[in-house]
Amino acid sequence: MNKNYYAILMAGGVGSRFWPVSTSSYPKQFHDMLGSGKTLIQKTFDRLNTFIPTENILILTNERYNDLVLEQLPMVKQDQVVLEPAMRNTSPCILYASLKVQKMNSNAVMVVAPSDHWIEDENAFQEDVKACFDKCQNESVLCTLGIRPTFPNTGFGYIEFEKESDESIKKVSQFREKPNYETAKQFLEQGNFLWNAGIFIWSAETIVNAFKEYQPSQYELFQEGFSCYNTPEESNFIQENYAKAENISIDYAILEQSQSIYTLPATFDWNDLGTWGALYDKLGKDNDKNAVVNANTLLVDAKGNMIRTPKGKLVVVDGLEDYIIVDKEEVLLIYPKSKEQDIKKVRGQVSDTFGEHYA
Amino acid sequence: MNKNYYAILMAGGVGSRFWPVSTSSYPKQFHDMLGSGKTLIQKTFDRLNTFIPTENILILTNERYNDLVLEQLPMVKQDQVVLEPAMRNTSPCILYASLKVQKMNSNAVMVVAPSDHWIEDENAFQEDVKACFDKCQNESVLCTLGIRPTFPNTGFGYIEFEKESDESIKKVSQFREKPNYETAKQFLEQGNFLWNAGIFIWSAETIVNAFKEYQPSQYELFQEGFSCYNTPEESNFIQENYAKAENISIDYAILEQSQSIYTLPATFDWNDLGTWGALYDKLGKDNDKNAVVNANTLLVDAKGNMIRTPKGKLVVVDGLEDYIIVDKEEVLLIYPKSKEQDIKKVRGQVSDTFGEHYA
Repeated sequence: MNKNYYAILMAGGVGSRFWPVSTSSYPKQFHDMLGSGKTLIQKTFDRLNTFIPTENILILTNERYNDLVLEQLPMVKQDQVVLEPAMRNTSPCILYASLKVQKMNSNAVMVVAPSDHWIEDENAFQEDVKACFDKCQNESVLCTLGIRPTFPNTGFGYIEFEKESDESIKKVSQFREKPNYETAKQFLEQGNFLWNAGIFIWSAETIVNAFKEYQPSQYELFQEGFSCYNTPEESNFIQENYAKAENISIDYAILEQSQSIYTLPATFDWNDLGTWGALYDKLGKDNDKNAVVNANTLLVDAKGNMIRTPKGKLVVVDGLEDYIIVDKEEVLLIYPKSKEQDIKKVRGQVSDTFGEHYA
Repeated sequence: MNKNYYAILMAGGVGSRFWPVSTSSYPKQFHDMLGSGKTLIQKTFDRLNTFIPTENILILTNERYNDLVLEQLPMVKQDQVVLEPAMRNTSPCILYASLKVQKMNSNAVMVVAPSDHWIEDENAFQEDVKACFDKCQNESVLCTLGIRPTFPNTGFGYIEFEKESDESIKKVSQFREKPNYETAKQFLEQGNFLWNAGIFIWSAETIVNAFKEYQPSQYELFQEGFSCYNTPEESNFIQENYAKAENISIDYAILEQSQSIYTLPATFDWNDLGTWGALYDKLGKDNDKNAVVNANTLLVDAKGNMIRTPKGKLVVVDGLEDYIIVDKEEVLLIYPKSKEQDIKKVRGQVSDTFGEHYA
């Protein structure tokens, strides 16, 4: 394996639209959402670990998930888990982790990737990331893997690339925020738009230089700790300074500023597993299109439902169609699939009304 | 309290239409179905115990429920629990218990009553039973409390009494099996029909004599053990002989044969709590007519549902109407109220498909 290959796994999210299975104390990435025997972060780690050395994979997460990471990824050492002492969106934590990587290996190229997405074709994923690694080793550019849109999804940001390029890795002309339906349809018709899946590839040097150029105060804040990183002094420095960082996303801080952004249209199937409906799409179905995880079921006149329970629970349903039925010890959710986007809101209401421990 | 007053509480049923809360290992009468803080058998015992001495109340049940009875009714001694070593319907166990009572007190009058019904007005119940006790102390008659029908229920047997009587306790002309809807409507129009609630009152002497006359072989079988009853020898005798008894109901064995049956139209409200819908009727409702036991709920567009869970479980429902939603550790049931009679069948299917322990 190439010793210059690094990965930063983003594992700090809450996955609130997957409530009640995903909660702030035990979020989605730490669950076996597909009933495959592995949690999402385990699957993501394995996918990267086929071509990136174990010790070169850093897990970026919140302090409260430290134990979950170490438990689910026993091959990972504590110093590979990069903990955010405060929630400051993706920019500060990526800069911080990138500086750590740069200090380990000034020739490092790295992939930054979410820990909770579905990607089945591991070889295609590997080939795509390696193609970007090659480009980033040779040029001072920032790359992203874009997903070819299959329908006018209004829930994702889009990447517009320059049509005329006949390279496989295209120059990005601009990032576009989540569009309305009409705009999304136009994007698809134009053919040079990809979904932004949050998968980025760059060298440590290039991303650090980009911060220096576009976010100088953030760069200064974290650069000051460079001598402490990967030493026992790091923790104190971070505890003292991290919260001072501006709350800003990597997209807004860097990607929308830089002129050297490239995108590779991914050659693998991808699903963000962002909602129960997205999970439903990826699961096997019975004859009535019910997707069932963990439960034993007796279903009559029940069609198109997404059912998930603790292992071995018996579920008897008569007459429900296109419902999300999720049972999880102290919470039972029976909710129309068509309203899945509201589950995030429901989670908030539950937290306000019945207490945070439910959320 | 009158030392001649006795009661036989029938507590051997399974309550299969209340599955999954009611199971063969933990039936309905041992559950707090109403969320009142007391189980049905506890409420029934208390109701009788206001006018019948504690030690005169026998509990007739299956061997497997012995521990549940002693646990839920700690004032009851083991020798008050009359155990059926085999399922032989109501006739053999009532004869056996009646002989035991007769041996304790040859002047005993007793009420035989189910342990799992809902009766709110305890005073009216007491007055009605006492009125029958009086009659049975003075005359060799068999009495039953009949329930004034409120609608043409096809799920109950009916008691037809002689219209011309102006006594409060009426002579029964005949018992009628569960009618079809048209017949049930005629019953209600005629005005001299009552629901048979399985509440019987008689003296020990009269019921034993009735068995002697109408079921001589059953009488002989159990009379032979008379010297053993209420002694250490009883258990052996019953183990050896009980299973030989004919499987037959008290209605068929005695009540439909005897010419000396009387009925008192009950002056209290009654509900057999036979189905989830019957329970629903007796529970308080929210503004959308949802009845909730034990759960914390967040309900949107949810109307007329019967919801029951373990204590404190959070239930979020959107868009369901007239459903039974029951969660019980390893089983979740989501079933239309209109099909509540099929739950018994579902329980059977579950037992066949997934194993008896679910049923």
